[in-house]
Amino acid sequence: MRALALAAVLTASPAWAADKPAPLVPSEVVAAAPKADWSAIAPADLLVMDLAPDARGKPRRVVIQLMPAPFTQGWVGNIRKLAAARWWDGLSINRVQDNYVVQWGDPDGEDKAKARPLPAGLAKVPQSEYVAHGPVPKGLPIRDSYAPQVGVTVSGWPFAGDGKAAWPVHCYGAVGVGRDLSPDTGTGAELYVVIGHAPRHLDRNIAVVGRVIEGIEHLSSLPRGTGPLGFYETAGERVGITSIRLGNDIADLPAYEYLSPSSLSFARYAQARENRKDAFFDLPAGGADICNIPVPVRRVKG
Amino acid sequence: MRALALAAVLTASPAWAADKPAPLVPSEVVAAAPKADWSAIAPADLLVMDLAPDARGKPRRVVIQLMPAPFTQGWVGNIRKLAAARWWDGLSINRVQDNYVVQWGDPDGEDKAKARPLPAGLAKVPQSEYVAHGPVPKGLPIRDSYAPQVGVTVSGWPFAGDGKAAWPVHCYGAVGVGRDLSPDTGTGAELYVVIGHAPRHLDRNIAVVGRVIEGIEHLSSLPRGTGPLGFYETAGERVGITSIRLGNDIADLPAYEYLSPSSLSFARYAQARENRKDAFFDLPAGGADICNIPVPVRRVKG
Repeated sequence: MRALALAAVLTASPAWAADKPAPLVPSEVVAAAPKADWSAIAPADLLVMDLAPDARGKPRRVVIQLMPAPFTQGWVGNIRKLAAARWWDGLSINRVQDNYVVQWGDPDGEDKAKARPLPAGLAKVPQSEYVAHGPVPKGLPIRDSYAPQVGVTVSGWPFAGDGKAAWPVHCYGAVGVGRDLSPDTGTGAELYVVIGHAPRHLDRNIAVVGRVIEGIEHLSSLPRGTGPLGFYETAGERVGITSIRLGNDIADLPAYEYLSPSSLSFARYAQARENRKDAFFDLPAGGADICNIPVPVRRVKG
Repeated sequence: MRALALAAVLTASPAWAADKPAPLVPSEVVAAAPKADWSAIAPADLLVMDLAPDARGKPRRVVIQLMPAPFTQGWVGNIRKLAAARWWDGLSINRVQDNYVVQWGDPDGEDKAKARPLPAGLAKVPQSEYVAHGPVPKGLPIRDSYAPQVGVTVSGWPFAGDGKAAWPVHCYGAVGVGRDLSPDTGTGAELYVVIGHAPRHLDRNIAVVGRVIEGIEHLSSLPRGTGPLGFYETAGERVGITSIRLGNDIADLPAYEYLSPSSLSFARYAQARENRKDAFFDLPAGGADICNIPVPVRRVKG
C-alpha cells in the first residue's frame, strides 16, 4: 500500500468492523446522495472557455458557473454581454502566479492604442455591490479567520457575513474580476481564478462572480509566469483563448448539477468533511474551513 | 492599468498622500526588514531535490527546509538517512492531484518483488510524535477553524495548539509523510507537498516534516495525473528524480534565511497581512488565516 499511502485520505474503502459499518468518507457520502438531493445548473448560468489545444493536440475546456443573485449581478451582467459579443475570442491567459491566480483578458489592455475596445453598454458597478445587504443566510457552526459567520447559501455558494450583510468568498476555484486601484471595480473583462490557498483578504475588495466546476487543471497546471506577479514576459508563453461562450450557446455541453445545501446528504457531507472518522484517520478535526467544504458539482448521469 | 489590475494586490506602490505615507504592503515590510531580523537556515537542514530537466532542458531544483525540534524528528531522522543512502535517486514523481498534493517516492513500492529496499536503521515512529507535548509556544490573536490556538514558533514554523500540546500544520508548500492506513505512520520514504488550499484535516494525522522554500512551481505546475487520486497511469508521465541530497552535500547551494518571528519586522508583516490598507484595498480583513501568513524566506544577499 505504500504508494497509495496518502491516497487513502480521499477515497479508500473504509475498514469494516464485524458489528458496524465504518463511517463514510466525504466522496462516498456524495456518491450515495439520491437524485432528489441534486439541483440542476441552468446552461445559461455557465461560461465555457475553450483554450487552444495543448502540446499534444488535446482540447482544453474550462467550465465556470456564474454566481446567482443576490451577489455581484452587475459584473455578471457585464460578463454575459462580453460573451455574447465574443469579446474574449483570440485573447489569452496572461498571468499565472503560483499559489495565487491565473488571469486572462486583453494582454494589450494597458495600451490604449492597441487595446481591444469593450462592447457598448457595460455597467459601471459600485463598490457597494461587493456585499449583498438584507437578510443574511444561515451560517454553519464553523470558526473563521475572516468573518463572524460563514456558510453555504441554499443556491450552493459559500459566503461570509457579519449579521447585517453577506458576501461571496475567495476559495480555490473562485473566479473574480480584475480591476485597477480602488475605487475602480473592474468591468468583468479581466477575470482571474484562484489556484492556491484561499486569498480571503480579497473578500469585499474584489467581485467574485463564479467558480470553475470543470477543467481547472487546464489553468492550474500552466507554467508560472516569470515576470512580476506571474505575468508572462513574452507573447509566446501566453495560451490563446479560442472562445468564451455562455453554456446555452454550446451545442454539446453536458448537463451539470450541484448537491443541494438544504439536503440531508449535504449535511452529512459537511459533517464528514469536519470529522474524518474513516480508516485513514486517527483524530477527526472537529471543524473545517469553509473553503474545505466545497459544494459538490457533477455531470448529470444519463 | 487594466491588465495589471489584480496585480496591485501584492506589490503595487502605494498612493502617497502629501501629509503621511501610505501603509506598506506586506512585501514592502519584508523588503525593509534589517539584516538583524533575519535568521540563517543551516544547509544541513535543507533537502535538495533535483528533477530531470524540463522539455526545454532547463534544470528543475526544489529546495525543502526540514522541520526542527520539537516537531516530527523521528521522521526527519529517517529522511536524513534516506538522503545519505541516495535512496530516492532514479525514482520519480508519481502523483499530482489538483488542489491537493504532489507525491514522490518508489512507483513500485506496493510490489514487493520490485520495490526498492529501504536502507537499514529507519525508525518506526509512533503516532504520539504527530504532536509535541510540553510548553505550548505563544499563539497569535487569530481565529482558526481547526484548533483553539495557532501561531508561528520562534524558529519560524506555523503551528496549532490546544493549550497542552502543539503540532505543525498543513499549509501550502508543507511537506508530509505518505503512509498506509492508521496506525501506520510512514517512514519518510514517500513524501508529498501541498499544492492547494490547506488540507488542515490532515493535521495530527500525518507527519509534517518540512516546507518547500524554493522551486515549488516545478511541482505545482506538473500535469495532473488522470488515475484515481491523481496518480499517473503510465510510467512515461512520471518525472524522474535525479537526486535528493541534504543541503550540506550540495557544493553550489545558495545560503537561505527566514524572517525571525520574534522580530519587529515580522510583527509588522503579520499585521500587514491581517489588515491590508494599501491603495488597492477598500476594506482590511482584520484577521488572517495562519496559512496566509507564510514565514518569509529568502536567499541571503551577497
